[in-house]
Amino acid sequence: MRSDDLSFGIDRRTLVSGLALLPTLSGTLFSASAQAQTTSEALASWNDGPAKQAILNFVRATTDQASQKFVPPEDRIATFDQDGTLWVEHPIYSQVVYCLDRVPAVVEKDPKLKNVEPFKTVLSGNREAIAKLSLHDLEKILVATLTGMSVEDFTAEAMKWLTNAKDARWKRPYPDLIYQPMLEVMQYLRGNGFKTYIVTGGGQDFVRAYSQRVYGVPPEQVVGTAGATKFGYHKDGTPFLTKEPKLLLNDDKAGKPEGIHLMIGRRPNASFGNSDGDRQMLEYTGAGDGARLMMLVLHDDAKREYAYGPAQGLPDTKVGTFTQALYDEAKKKSWTVISMKNDWKRIFGFEQSA
Amino acid sequence: MRSDDLSFGIDRRTLVSGLALLPTLSGTLFSASAQAQTTSEALASWNDGPAKQAILNFVRATTDQASQKFVPPEDRIATFDQDGTLWVEHPIYSQVVYCLDRVPAVVEKDPKLKNVEPFKTVLSGNREAIAKLSLHDLEKILVATLTGMSVEDFTAEAMKWLTNAKDARWKRPYPDLIYQPMLEVMQYLRGNGFKTYIVTGGGQDFVRAYSQRVYGVPPEQVVGTAGATKFGYHKDGTPFLTKEPKLLLNDDKAGKPEGIHLMIGRRPNASFGNSDGDRQMLEYTGAGDGARLMMLVLHDDAKREYAYGPAQGLPDTKVGTFTQALYDEAKKKSWTVISMKNDWKRIFGFEQSA
Repeated sequence: MRSDDLSFGIDRRTLVSGLALLPTLSGTLFSASAQAQTTSEALASWNDGPAKQAILNFVRATTDQASQKFVPPEDRIATFDQDGTLWVEHPIYSQVVYCLDRVPAVVEKDPKLKNVEPFKTVLSGNREAIAKLSLHDLEKILVATLTGMSVEDFTAEAMKWLTNAKDARWKRPYPDLIYQPMLEVMQYLRGNGFKTYIVTGGGQDFVRAYSQRVYGVPPEQVVGTAGATKFGYHKDGTPFLTKEPKLLLNDDKAGKPEGIHLMIGRRPNASFGNSDGDRQMLEYTGAGDGARLMMLVLHDDAKREYAYGPAQGLPDTKVGTFTQALYDEAKKKSWTVISMKNDWKRIFGFEQSA
Repeated sequence: MRSDDLSFGIDRRTLVSGLALLPTLSGTLFSASAQAQTTSEALASWNDGPAKQAILNFVRATTDQASQKFVPPEDRIATFDQDGTLWVEHPIYSQVVYCLDRVPAVVEKDPKLKNVEPFKTVLSGNREAIAKLSLHDLEKILVATLTGMSVEDFTAEAMKWLTNAKDARWKRPYPDLIYQPMLEVMQYLRGNGFKTYIVTGGGQDFVRAYSQRVYGVPPEQVVGTAGATKFGYHKDGTPFLTKEPKLLLNDDKAGKPEGIHLMIGRRPNASFGNSDGDRQMLEYTGAGDGARLMMLVLHDDAKREYAYGPAQGLPDTKVGTFTQALYDEAKKKSWTVISMKNDWKRIFGFEQSA
């Protein structure tokens, strides 16, 4: 998830046409979407403990026809935050890196921006100066890099970047940095009849560009921060949609249950998050009848991933803030806090299995 | 579909909780969602002819693995307008009748409205005066009857009405007035791996309240005119969503492809409509690669249903306008015009099979 000051991800896309433009996608890069498994063996990267048990208990209660909490298959909905819950968000959201990386192409197309801030600073490559850009500057960069093109062009650009760009620490493409244990939870739930949705503060079109290949989640099951598009015609009469700089849904905090209602129209049975941006989604999920599963990923593994957040007495990094208040609410309401350090045998799919 | 002056359907809902409140729903009233059929027998209410043949040809081309136009099952999307395409829209949209019927309850809750227009006129029951209400008056009625309540309360009210209210001509509940041949097309497409969506100018929450039971379409596969909701808490801390009088998506005309991109994120392979409000959706569908199916229902059966629209030299009723220009575009682009009179053996499921 993303904190308020980064949740301006105005972008969208059409998957089919975008994918058609991308013959270079490698099979190893996009490895998700595996066959559903229906036994607890599916959670192979989880250590035995209360978190794994909570998942197993929830699935048993909702899928056993003899259970008083049985949920018909067509009503089974699970929602997952993305950044910090399904993949690495630290020290900076991947989509923000994407936008910064796109600035040279934007300036090439509109050279007068070369000497205009904040583009000038981004082009300088001065990391310290870039890190100090204001929210207002960041918004200008997001608007310039995420809007003004057709949805097909946007998807093609995003996919090219996701295939080629590499994270600074692991030197791997960003889609490699999804959490293997969470992928297993998604597959396990799908294997038990749940529709899995991504509900992200990130840009809806950005995440839809890779959701099927990376998570096995089709584009229509991605709810994200979304901007308007505008229908128009090329000179030859062919219709197309242009991404507009107009925000329709800020899918963060209270915007998450609001976005869930807009896009899904019913209350999830299970929700997964990792920060204050997910609080309202988990509260909304928890307010329904029957069996409920609310889980929060705690980033407490400085060695294998990162450790951050006020709930651990660590500095608030403004990325994926997990406050003490959220931690207290989780304990009070019996939500499950997942310790990356203790509950996960491995973090990434590319690691050796423990 | 709806013409511009009625497309202000700001409403939304949560299905599960609403349905739980409704033990009175009868099995006969909501009869759709039957088992998918995979042979042409599924189109039992269609006469042999170019319309039926177009459907069969499209399904064969997209589902036969040997076909050059084969579409993988996960990419098969079909979108259907509702009013005038899936059920009767003449002489007035059902949802407008719903709003008018809700006025007494709204006035009871806020008695000072009793002598305020347009509520006073609606309460008078003077049909002639009601028919003359302005667009501005109508908007006041829609806002008063479709917003300001929780999504659960809205759904419960809508379902109560749909179960009990009866159409003036057929003396039957509105869900009985769905077109049997179109229901068969939806089932036939689903039986062949297509996800069927309703893409309606009507209120998203209103249609979602009955889409599963009437059409076999789950709430998340309804794209409609949608308003914002606001997340808040009851005094006991329980969260809930309130329907707000703020329009997010006007799902008519250009708003249909825009809504499809927002909610589905990919281009449909097939689209069905009946008026100028569906033109852009059919154009957008037709602009994709591979096999395409674009169909328009023509209301030319004054005896069994209604005949209306400029394309037949009949008066423009402002409801479901099928202009000559749309008819010409359909002919030019080889879209299929469905003649209700000639192509359909029967209109409704309650009629004797021909």
